[in-house]
Amino acid sequence: MRLYEFTKSYALFEQAQQYVPGGIYGPRSPHFLTFGSYPTFIARGQGARIWDVDGNEYIDYLCSFGTNLLGLRHPKVDAAARAQQEKGDCFPLPSDLWVPLARTLVETVQDMGWCVFGKNGSDVTSYAITVARAYTGRPDILMAHGSYHGAHFWCQPHGEGVPPEWRSHVHEFEYNDVEGLHRAVDSLKDTLAAIILTPHRHDALRKQEVPTPAFVDAVNSLAEKTGCLLVIDDIRCGFRFDLRGTAAHYGYRADLNCLGKAMANGYPIAAALGREKLRSAAEKVFFSGTHFFSGVPFAAALATIDEVREAGVIDRIRDLGTSLMEGLAQAARAAGIRAVLSGPPAMPFLMFEDDPTFEKNRFFCGQAARRGIFFHPHHNWFVCAALTDEDLQETFEIAEICFRLTREQYGE
Amino acid sequence: MRLYEFTKSYALFEQAQQYVPGGIYGPRSPHFLTFGSYPTFIARGQGARIWDVDGNEYIDYLCSFGTNLLGLRHPKVDAAARAQQEKGDCFPLPSDLWVPLARTLVETVQDMGWCVFGKNGSDVTSYAITVARAYTGRPDILMAHGSYHGAHFWCQPHGEGVPPEWRSHVHEFEYNDVEGLHRAVDSLKDTLAAIILTPHRHDALRKQEVPTPAFVDAVNSLAEKTGCLLVIDDIRCGFRFDLRGTAAHYGYRADLNCLGKAMANGYPIAAALGREKLRSAAEKVFFSGTHFFSGVPFAAALATIDEVREAGVIDRIRDLGTSLMEGLAQAARAAGIRAVLSGPPAMPFLMFEDDPTFEKNRFFCGQAARRGIFFHPHHNWFVCAALTDEDLQETFEIAEICFRLTREQYGE
Repeated sequence: MRLYEFTKSYALFEQAQQYVPGGIYGPRSPHFLTFGSYPTFIARGQGARIWDVDGNEYIDYLCSFGTNLLGLRHPKVDAAARAQQEKGDCFPLPSDLWVPLARTLVETVQDMGWCVFGKNGSDVTSYAITVARAYTGRPDILMAHGSYHGAHFWCQPHGEGVPPEWRSHVHEFEYNDVEGLHRAVDSLKDTLAAIILTPHRHDALRKQEVPTPAFVDAVNSLAEKTGCLLVIDDIRCGFRFDLRGTAAHYGYRADLNCLGKAMANGYPIAAALGREKLRSAAEKVFFSGTHFFSGVPFAAALATIDEVREAGVIDRIRDLGTSLMEGLAQAARAAGIRAVLSGPPAMPFLMFEDDPTFEKNRFFCGQAARRGIFFHPHHNWFVCAALTDEDLQETFEIAEICFRLTREQYGE
Repeated sequence: MRLYEFTKSYALFEQAQQYVPGGIYGPRSPHFLTFGSYPTFIARGQGARIWDVDGNEYIDYLCSFGTNLLGLRHPKVDAAARAQQEKGDCFPLPSDLWVPLARTLVETVQDMGWCVFGKNGSDVTSYAITVARAYTGRPDILMAHGSYHGAHFWCQPHGEGVPPEWRSHVHEFEYNDVEGLHRAVDSLKDTLAAIILTPHRHDALRKQEVPTPAFVDAVNSLAEKTGCLLVIDDIRCGFRFDLRGTAAHYGYRADLNCLGKAMANGYPIAAALGREKLRSAAEKVFFSGTHFFSGVPFAAALATIDEVREAGVIDRIRDLGTSLMEGLAQAARAAGIRAVLSGPPAMPFLMFEDDPTFEKNRFFCGQAARRGIFFHPHHNWFVCAALTDEDLQETFEIAEICFRLTREQYGE
């Protein structure tokens, strides 16, 4: 098997470093992947596959960090987007798809009475906590330690240049720790505006955890008891588990839901939805962005939701993800190495035992990338509906080779 | 002349109110225009013209709040965007247009050494002040009273649900007030990270002001003397005055430039550019967004910049805007009413004397809207390059009718 070379990728990355601090920032930086064993720029994509600037082809299990739900260049979604593009995209007022998408979301997501639209996930998580504050008249926000809710000042996980005051009022507890949650809520209850949670724990650089039923119950009953609101940050999970929202999938009684990423299969749009009782508070919140109202992503979102519903996408993704996790576990066993698969099948993640620095994982994923499988060593993966059984077989064969190489390098 | 009816618009707005708090939020709300005398939803657009859901046609002087620079559905920009769309838009890594656009921006905007890309204007203004803080190690930001720098917590102009701590460290002075600027800088100098300014004063609900040479000099010399950085928020003005950035147009020595709105002629992308000396501070700042890296807006931005350069767009817009302002002033004189035109020609604004509540202006703009001219009574206008001399003649004829009606209603 020919190993991929990344000559053009790293020549371009050299140039990128000249014009962009660090070349590429955020989680797309090659330093967050496996430097030298991954491409740095993608030339094109189709379905579940991408091609880098050197012409190397990959089966993509990162799915563009979760925006790819149905497959890249999905014909139905792209046709809807093109039809709107033929009318125009960004107008001085909203397009005529404003009401159709708002109605569809409100009628689709469980218990929600209204919605607003933004561009980034961060736009709508920040909006949701602001509505919670306006509604409750309280300042404090409780989030799980290590959860990622966006890049705005109140929630960004690290980085310089943010004064401590701009992060004030944000408190943490451990996901799935019922006692810790009780203690945190008790210490804040009269000032607690909202608990914000991802549907399951999908932090980078750790094993994923689905919420325990006891944890979901505790969240629901503490929110009810203290009068704080429950914000579900469904940016990463949304429409991969349940069209009603992932809160419904796990039994969370969400007051506000945040959607983004996959909701338009890669077109840029995000949405916050809220219960009817929050409507007048929402009207008092400032929310604005020049491109929030552009019609093309609205068309893409409507087509995406329709396709998810019509084509049984959620079941298909769950089945594909289940096969992926089983096949990888079996390939690891065959290679004699202990792999830890975690997370629900639609969003799996693979780690190794005794790998605190993720060095083994970077080696494994780098070997896979050089053979055409795009995994990620530090960030949860995604499964898209365009994946085929042949893709899975190819993945398992290459994974077994890479598991063996990892075992030879690091032991079992 | 048949007056436009907005039957379908307001029927749809009724429905919108059911699904969205307030129906439409932000400056696209009909309450920020002239309720009842404007459409609420736009069905399509072409060049300088838009059509609402009732089929009414308008010459659009709001230019989609500034994103429309070359004309809606510009063939060259849309062709470039479509070509990228055929390869795919949102990948797990940046597209191969990352370096070409970064290089083009850095080589085009004056004195800049690097750039980063975001989606909203707010993304990059927040990023720019964060780089300034990381570089200087100081917390405070100085902005002009009434300037709009985005919707994030530190700068949003109003709205509930934002604790005072999240707006701390932001101080204000009056645009063009040299003495006030000196006093503000003196009171902060050891803790001042940045002065952030729009190139000219284009706040809503007031006369526009271009910066005086004395003000520009004071800003430049105070930044140099105190070691704070100068951030130019060029979101609204960018590429309408000078491809080198509007800082260069007025003589500001900017350390950071923020671009958005028109830079891709309506496709969603924003950029921050900084001086070479800020590169290592920029590398320490956290900046991330799922759709920041999508290829389609990069293709559109490259085509837009090329077209602005090749087609003499900036001169054309200045000439069209000059004719617009002169023609409107003449129409007002002919109608015997005192209109106040302000702002540079590429971004004019019209007000009336003795109109503190803007009631006259809402009446005038509403009458114009019902006759096919889309002005805005509260927000500066924009001129796009697709406007024709015939469009201007039609505008002047209708404006004169509306000026007469305004005079009959309110006096001169």
